[in-house]
Amino acid sequence: MTEFKICLIGFGAVGQGVAKAINMKKQSIQEKYGKELKIVAVSDSSSSAISDNGLDEELLLKTKSDFGKLNKYPEYGLDNSGEDVLDSVDYDCLIEVTPTNIENGEPAKSLALKAFKSKKDVVTSNKGHLALFYKELIEEANLNNVQFKFEASVGGAMPIINFADETLPSSNIKSIIGILNGTTNYILSRMTSEGSTYLNTLEESQQLGIAETDPTQDVEGIDAACKTVILANSVLNIDATYKDVEVVGISKITSEAIDLAKKEGYLIKLIAEVSPNSLRVSPRLVRKNSPYAVEGTLNMATLKTDLADEVTVVGKGAGSLETASAILTDLINIIKTK
Amino acid sequence: MTEFKICLIGFGAVGQGVAKAINMKKQSIQEKYGKELKIVAVSDSSSSAISDNGLDEELLLKTKSDFGKLNKYPEYGLDNSGEDVLDSVDYDCLIEVTPTNIENGEPAKSLALKAFKSKKDVVTSNKGHLALFYKELIEEANLNNVQFKFEASVGGAMPIINFADETLPSSNIKSIIGILNGTTNYILSRMTSEGSTYLNTLEESQQLGIAETDPTQDVEGIDAACKTVILANSVLNIDATYKDVEVVGISKITSEAIDLAKKEGYLIKLIAEVSPNSLRVSPRLVRKNSPYAVEGTLNMATLKTDLADEVTVVGKGAGSLETASAILTDLINIIKTK
Repeated sequence: MTEFKICLIGFGAVGQGVAKAINMKKQSIQEKYGKELKIVAVSDSSSSAISDNGLDEELLLKTKSDFGKLNKYPEYGLDNSGEDVLDSVDYDCLIEVTPTNIENGEPAKSLALKAFKSKKDVVTSNKGHLALFYKELIEEANLNNVQFKFEASVGGAMPIINFADETLPSSNIKSIIGILNGTTNYILSRMTSEGSTYLNTLEESQQLGIAETDPTQDVEGIDAACKTVILANSVLNIDATYKDVEVVGISKITSEAIDLAKKEGYLIKLIAEVSPNSLRVSPRLVRKNSPYAVEGTLNMATLKTDLADEVTVVGKGAGSLETASAILTDLINIIKTK
Repeated sequence: MTEFKICLIGFGAVGQGVAKAINMKKQSIQEKYGKELKIVAVSDSSSSAISDNGLDEELLLKTKSDFGKLNKYPEYGLDNSGEDVLDSVDYDCLIEVTPTNIENGEPAKSLALKAFKSKKDVVTSNKGHLALFYKELIEEANLNNVQFKFEASVGGAMPIINFADETLPSSNIKSIIGILNGTTNYILSRMTSEGSTYLNTLEESQQLGIAETDPTQDVEGIDAACKTVILANSVLNIDATYKDVEVVGISKITSEAIDLAKKEGYLIKLIAEVSPNSLRVSPRLVRKNSPYAVEGTLNMATLKTDLADEVTVVGKGAGSLETASAILTDLINIIKTK
C-alpha cells in the first residue's frame, strides 16, 4: 500500500466538497486502486493547515465552519497560504480550487506552473487560467511530464471532457452545442414558466443564492464563454483564448420574447457553440422536448460526431459535492496511472 | 506495427455498419494505437468470406448488396457460416452481431463461448445471450482471461456501460432510469404530437421502417427488458436474468390517456428502471422539459449517483453506423490493452 498525498488550495464551497468527497471515498479508493489518499495541506485565502502525516477531513471542515479560517486547526494550523504552502510540504498532486479570475488567471496560473515545475500532477476546477493561457499551461505540463486535469472546470458534475475522450474514442467530435451556465438556465426557465420579467427573476435567483450579488459573470455570458474556450482547446483541439469567443448575455431578454417563442413551440436558452467555424455564447431558440430543453440549473451539452451522430450529456453544473465528484474522477484517473 | 485480426459474424445492418466504420477509421486507429485492423472473416446466416490476408470492406459491402450473400466475394467467398467460420481462421477478436434471440440466446451464446475457449476477446451488440446467461458468459470470459464487451447491446450509440465505468469512477451508481427502446419512444412521441391512436401510429411507424412487421419485441417491452437486465448486471452488479424483470408494454395506451397527461404537463414514456429494489419496464408519466422528455427514436438514461447526483446521457438507440460506433469503441478499448 502506498500513500498518495494531496495538497488542496482553495477551501470555499468546492474545496470543502473535495474534503467531504475524499472522506466518503478514501476507503473504497484504497480497496480498488491500492493507494491511501492523504490530504497533507489545505489552504484558504489567508490560512492553512499542513501535516506530512495527513489531516483529518472532518476536523478541517469543522475548523473552517467554526472559525472561518484554517489557522485554528489543532496543532497544524498556520497563517500562510497559496504558493507558500506548496513550498512547505511534500505532495503528489495539487488540487487547485481557488476562485476563477478572468483578468489574469491568478492565483491559479502561478500555482499550476509551480506544481508542474516540481513535477507534480494538478487537478483544477478553475476556469480563468485555462480560458486565458490554455496552450501555455498544457505545454508546461507536458514539458514536465505531469498530468493536468480539469473536468470540473466545465459543467461541474456533468461529464464532458473525460466523456469525449474516453467514452467516444471511435468518433470524431465535430462540434459541441450546450447550456454551460446553470444560473442563466435557471433565470430563463423561471421567466418561461412564470411569465416574469428578467429583473424580477434575477432578484429571486439572488435571494435563493443561485445568482451572485454581482451577477455579471453569469448573466453576461462570461462564465459560459470561459467554458467554451476550454472545450474548444481540450476537445476540439482549437487553439483559442477567451477573446476569440463572441458573447451575448441574457440581460436584454424580455418576457415578451420568451412568450412569443413559447407560442411557436420554442424556448430561449443561453447556448454555447464550440465548432471550428464558430465560438460563441448567445441566447438562441431551441425546440421544446429536445435535449436542449432542460430546466432549472441543469447544464447540458450535445456532441455532434461522425459515427455516433449526436450524443448528449446532462448534469448538475454546480454544487459543492457535485463539482467535487468531477475532481475526484480526475484524481482517480491520475491514481490509475501510478 | 502489429496486426489486429477481426472475425465478424453477422452481416445485417449492424454488421455492415461495422465494416463501414472500420473502413472509415482503420487509418486513424493505426496512427493512434499502432495496430493495423484487418477483417479476416465475415459471415452472414448462410455464407462467408475468409482470408488470412484480410478482406476489403468496400468489396464485402458491394458483394452483399449485389448478391445478398457473401459466397460471391471474389476468390474468398464460401458457403459455410457461424461456428464453422471461427474454426477456419486465425483471429484476435470476434465481433458478433447476429440477431437477438430471447428464447435461448443462440447463436450468440455458442459463438461467444467458443471464442472464449480459444482465448479470443469478444465484442457484441447482441442482447439475447446477455439477458439470459449474463453470469455464465462473464465467468467463462474471466476463466479464459479474455475481454467481453457489449456497449452496443444497450442504447446503440448512447454510451451507458462504458460511461458508467469510465466517466463516473468517483461515484456509486444507485439506479438507472431510462428510455431504452427507440421504436416505442417514436410511437408515444407521435401519439402525443399528433393526437393519433396507438394502432394508427404503429402502422405509420411500420411504413417508415421504425417498427418491425412483428412489433412484439418492441411494443411489449421485451427489448427494453433485455437491456434492463444487462444494465442491472453490468453497471449495478445485480445478479438477474430476463425473467426477473416486470414488463408492461405500450399497446394498451390510449390517445385519451396521453391527452390527459399532456394537459397536466406530463408525457407518457416507456420507462426502464434498474435499481436494487426494482427491475421493471412500464409506461410512466414524466415531466415536460425534463431529461426524460426526449422525442422520436432517441434513447436516454439517467444515472442516480451518490456524489454527482443525477447524470443523463441521450443518444441514438439504433442505426447501422451509430450502433457500429459503440462496437468500435469497445474494440478500441480492447486494442488499447494489447
